[in-house]
Amino acid sequence: MWGTRKRRVPQTRFPNLLLKYIKPMKTRNKQNLLAAALACVLAFTAAAARAADPLPSWNNGQAKKSIIAFVELVTKPSSPDFVPVPERIATFDNDGTLWCEQPLPVQLYFTLDRVKALAPQHPEWKTTEPFASLLKGDLNTALAGGERSLLELIMATHAGMITAEFEQIVKDWIATAKHSKTGRPHTQMVYQPMLELLAYLRANGFKTFIVSGGGIDFMRPWTEQVYGIPPEQVVGSSIKTKFEMRDGKPVIVRLPELNFIDDKGGKPVGINQHIGRRPVMAFGNSDGDREMLEYTQGGTGQRFMLLVLHDDATREYAYGPAKGLPDVKLGAFTAALYDEAKKNNWTVVSMRDDWAQIFPSGKNTIAGN
Amino acid sequence: MWGTRKRRVPQTRFPNLLLKYIKPMKTRNKQNLLAAALACVLAFTAAAARAADPLPSWNNGQAKKSIIAFVELVTKPSSPDFVPVPERIATFDNDGTLWCEQPLPVQLYFTLDRVKALAPQHPEWKTTEPFASLLKGDLNTALAGGERSLLELIMATHAGMITAEFEQIVKDWIATAKHSKTGRPHTQMVYQPMLELLAYLRANGFKTFIVSGGGIDFMRPWTEQVYGIPPEQVVGSSIKTKFEMRDGKPVIVRLPELNFIDDKGGKPVGINQHIGRRPVMAFGNSDGDREMLEYTQGGTGQRFMLLVLHDDATREYAYGPAKGLPDVKLGAFTAALYDEAKKNNWTVVSMRDDWAQIFPSGKNTIAGN
Repeated sequence: MWGTRKRRVPQTRFPNLLLKYIKPMKTRNKQNLLAAALACVLAFTAAAARAADPLPSWNNGQAKKSIIAFVELVTKPSSPDFVPVPERIATFDNDGTLWCEQPLPVQLYFTLDRVKALAPQHPEWKTTEPFASLLKGDLNTALAGGERSLLELIMATHAGMITAEFEQIVKDWIATAKHSKTGRPHTQMVYQPMLELLAYLRANGFKTFIVSGGGIDFMRPWTEQVYGIPPEQVVGSSIKTKFEMRDGKPVIVRLPELNFIDDKGGKPVGINQHIGRRPVMAFGNSDGDREMLEYTQGGTGQRFMLLVLHDDATREYAYGPAKGLPDVKLGAFTAALYDEAKKNNWTVVSMRDDWAQIFPSGKNTIAGN
Repeated sequence: MWGTRKRRVPQTRFPNLLLKYIKPMKTRNKQNLLAAALACVLAFTAAAARAADPLPSWNNGQAKKSIIAFVELVTKPSSPDFVPVPERIATFDNDGTLWCEQPLPVQLYFTLDRVKALAPQHPEWKTTEPFASLLKGDLNTALAGGERSLLELIMATHAGMITAEFEQIVKDWIATAKHSKTGRPHTQMVYQPMLELLAYLRANGFKTFIVSGGGIDFMRPWTEQVYGIPPEQVVGSSIKTKFEMRDGKPVIVRLPELNFIDDKGGKPVGINQHIGRRPVMAFGNSDGDREMLEYTQGGTGQRFMLLVLHDDATREYAYGPAKGLPDVKLGAFTAALYDEAKKNNWTVVSMRDDWAQIFPSGKNTIAGN
């Protein structure tokens, strides 16, 4: 196009101003100009394709098609399945759905780091489980007590300070902590296809919420920056808190007492408590999300449910035990859940087949895991 | 102006079309036209003033000035006190702040009506307090047990069904229940100046939340229609709920167990739990709002706190006991709260002096109360 136009310049009615600049050019410069023009054209074409495709990191498979078809179905005003904007609620699990949860959930690494940081103030931890094993680096023994051990670790590290202090602790940690395999910050270990999906849904009038088993106050300090999800749209597990005046200042103190576990049957309860409407779309990746998807599907009208199956050992992790994939302690996608998904027409995303790209930067995938 | 123009009509260049209509008129018709024209001019002037004035039902006093000055201060990008849109959180108490809470809070009337409706299924209530007295119409004896009696009444009427059923019960009741003095629906007993304030704040990028001691699920079915506040922006007291599959359908069951009381020190806790940020502006009317306003003021940067004082016995109700006004059992604004407001530079609205209009329709004020 540019070449054609250049040849035609002398025949146009207002060429002189342009010719003044073009005439002194040498052949090499003309080639450069041509290359630059071609680059411009290619960039424009790519941008146009991108604008036309709201989910460029999704391969053109059934999963992508089902998402777009559903959004078009419920947002077209003439559609019998039209959903008014205020009712367009989409809920997303976090661990394993929006960001990487292997080899262990990120909040567990945060907890371990906090135990180490606080150990000097707790000499008794050297001889008290689960702290003693943890400080010796023996994670398996530390967590052998199951939920009770985990709760003890959480209370020792997540309570006892005011909310503003805890927020700062999380911000400082998340700014520097790195994934054990890739060495990248955890906030860069988020799934590019899901970032695109969040943006696509918001562009279509959806309000996007996180509904996670993770700690609500562990997520809020960074979800707005990373996912575009503000604190008031984050639902999660929590400990009890208490208002008090401390040195004349009004503060909220974090108490070592469980308030709410936002997992399994807790997810619909948390959704009802925080949002007060059934979601129209719900996204998860593990057995902890089953009830959220069931609850979503139980609403009237059209609903959309999706599960991410981690079956990409090259670019991320492969775990189930659904479809014969290796089992995991935390974040399992069981065969029973897979069967329920198929029976209920939930969309199951194969990370390997449906996602053209996993992380925001194409590099640094988790090879060999 | 119009008179002047009329005299000049014959001298204009395009008068004939107008004269065609004016000429046949008799003197009386001309006077009518003049009156109509004057009405038009006045209506136009009023509309222009209204467009320029975001709070037309507020008299031009200190309260109105302080609100507008604050909003301009924090929304002007060049202001050193500028607050980014995502942080513009405004929280409103409901009873006595957004709608009338006298002679008793609306939810109490709902509870009493539900006891009556459910009585045939509970023959034992005839001999069990607080139900027996209530069913005999003796409210004082029924509530003599204080908080315990109230809780018993709430659990008997607000629990035991699924959330969708309770929502429908509230919708049906609120659509027909009338205020005992005015005979108007409670949803029309909302304060016009506060409706304007909600709209004004939203037009300036604020997210408006209700933070009420009232039941979260009693408010949500109607707050969007009445206040423009969606369910996910309503914080309130709640009972525990539980997810279950009932006849193959995923439902949330309301349990007869207290979950959270969103009053006094509970309000900052509820705000932290649901919103996860300190409000920039907070509005209340009673001692139950003290901690919410303290918590709001405790944030960094500029904050705005306001209390509505009900001192208008003619158009609504007059109660304190602040400023020597009559005391009330529920919704009291004590002298201590008034002193704290003055000390902390909180804005105190005098309903009598600051509000030009109380309810959306100027008629049906509560004369003589």
